[in-house]
Amino acid sequence: MTVRQLSLPELADGCRRLGVTGVGLWREPVRAYGVAAAGALLRDAGIAVTSLCRGGFLTAGDRAGRRRALDDNRAALDEAAGVGTDTLVLVCGGLPPGDRDPAGARERIADAIGELVPYAAERAVRLAVEPLHPMYAADRCVVSTLGQALELAGRFPAERVGVVVDTYHVWWDDTAPAALAAAGAAGRLAAFQLADWVTPLPRGVLDGRGQLGDGSVEFRYWRRLMDAAGYTGPIEVELFNDGLWVRDGFEVLRETVARFHAHVL
Amino acid sequence: MTVRQLSLPELADGCRRLGVTGVGLWREPVRAYGVAAAGALLRDAGIAVTSLCRGGFLTAGDRAGRRRALDDNRAALDEAAGVGTDTLVLVCGGLPPGDRDPAGARERIADAIGELVPYAAERAVRLAVEPLHPMYAADRCVVSTLGQALELAGRFPAERVGVVVDTYHVWWDDTAPAALAAAGAAGRLAAFQLADWVTPLPRGVLDGRGQLGDGSVEFRYWRRLMDAAGYTGPIEVELFNDGLWVRDGFEVLRETVARFHAHVL
Repeated sequence: MTVRQLSLPELADGCRRLGVTGVGLWREPVRAYGVAAAGALLRDAGIAVTSLCRGGFLTAGDRAGRRRALDDNRAALDEAAGVGTDTLVLVCGGLPPGDRDPAGARERIADAIGELVPYAAERAVRLAVEPLHPMYAADRCVVSTLGQALELAGRFPAERVGVVVDTYHVWWDDTAPAALAAAGAAGRLAAFQLADWVTPLPRGVLDGRGQLGDGSVEFRYWRRLMDAAGYTGPIEVELFNDGLWVRDGFEVLRETVARFHAHVL
Repeated sequence: MTVRQLSLPELADGCRRLGVTGVGLWREPVRAYGVAAAGALLRDAGIAVTSLCRGGFLTAGDRAGRRRALDDNRAALDEAAGVGTDTLVLVCGGLPPGDRDPAGARERIADAIGELVPYAAERAVRLAVEPLHPMYAADRCVVSTLGQALELAGRFPAERVGVVVDTYHVWWDDTAPAALAAAGAAGRLAAFQLADWVTPLPRGVLDGRGQLGDGSVEFRYWRRLMDAAGYTGPIEVELFNDGLWVRDGFEVLRETVARFHAHVL
């Protein structure tokens, strides 16, 4: 998503040239390219698919909405397995119109994850619950903290349901380090994503994630917490940023690799 | 602030006509009108000044910035006493440029509050620490949760430092109810403010607070928590909303009173 202006072949080529050995993908370009073809493309380039984004949106209160969501998540699990990743990131969903009960919505998410777990197990894919920043609680994700994500994941086997640590969403939270350590001890750290926090936030607050080093996040602090918690998986950089999307994709990729070296390693 | 298009005399008149018996004020219009004159105006109209907004911005890391902030907060305490309220709301401040350590900034806030407490005591004013939504953590307030605010306030005497519960800032937080109850037990509930959460958020995320009933907040739930925690103080409605500010101020005040009856009482 950081370089969504690149086609999948351009992305694979850019990663190969820069020594990037893994990449997280989003569903839309994968489906457009063809799931199996995308998997073959990256496999042939020697690039691991670290995760697929995203399933989720599991908070519908009505039967039809719930069935649609489960169907879509089963399709996402098929796509994850098809493209060759073991991790499906879940953005769990916000409050349905007129609903003012985040706790109730979280229970519906738990119920839905319970229904998806056997299907995920058959495909050897893990559901990765991503807490989103509280500014998305109403319209995108009622799971706002790592603690809530871990509580939710903890109801299911660790090999099937984990949590995502994304610095953009948790950097402000002084309870996140303890939840992160607990998630590590429980074997539930499923993904680690980076974006910097920059202000002013844009209207709708979706596309203002900062390039590494441009904002308020102390990345080494979070990377060391992940290290200390036993996480040895990939580190993804996920920047939704209008300013990056209008630039040359390969240049953005190169800059991102340089920033990663400067601010994360 | 909800009806900032009204002058202080218009506000006093509007409150009197609608049976609103108290009002929270902001410093700028009070200073422009004259602190003593504003206090006399509202006293003569029989309207209590429930709080003054705002002191704070106490996170400067340099000596000059810190001295300026303390001077400004002493002035705010003078103004609070002068206008006739016992509550000064603190928006504690974000990260200074280049600072990536919210915990360190919170310690500087604690130090500064410690310096202000004797001055506040001499004026019989209480400092009310307001946790702001985590989307403001970088640029306005590193105190993001009621739990953090209570920890900070708890270092000082309860009659001098309390916390603000503002639904706009805490509605998403499943740990807030316990912190609210603890604050009540400790005698530290200093103010209760209402605004609804509506999306999409505007650029800069400052002026998008929803009229009561328009968004995701279940106000009666929070009012009952405050009741159960022993809070018997005023309930303020604080809406930063461009759409409300361009309307007739008295009509907005009338609408707000009606919404308060419909959604809060």
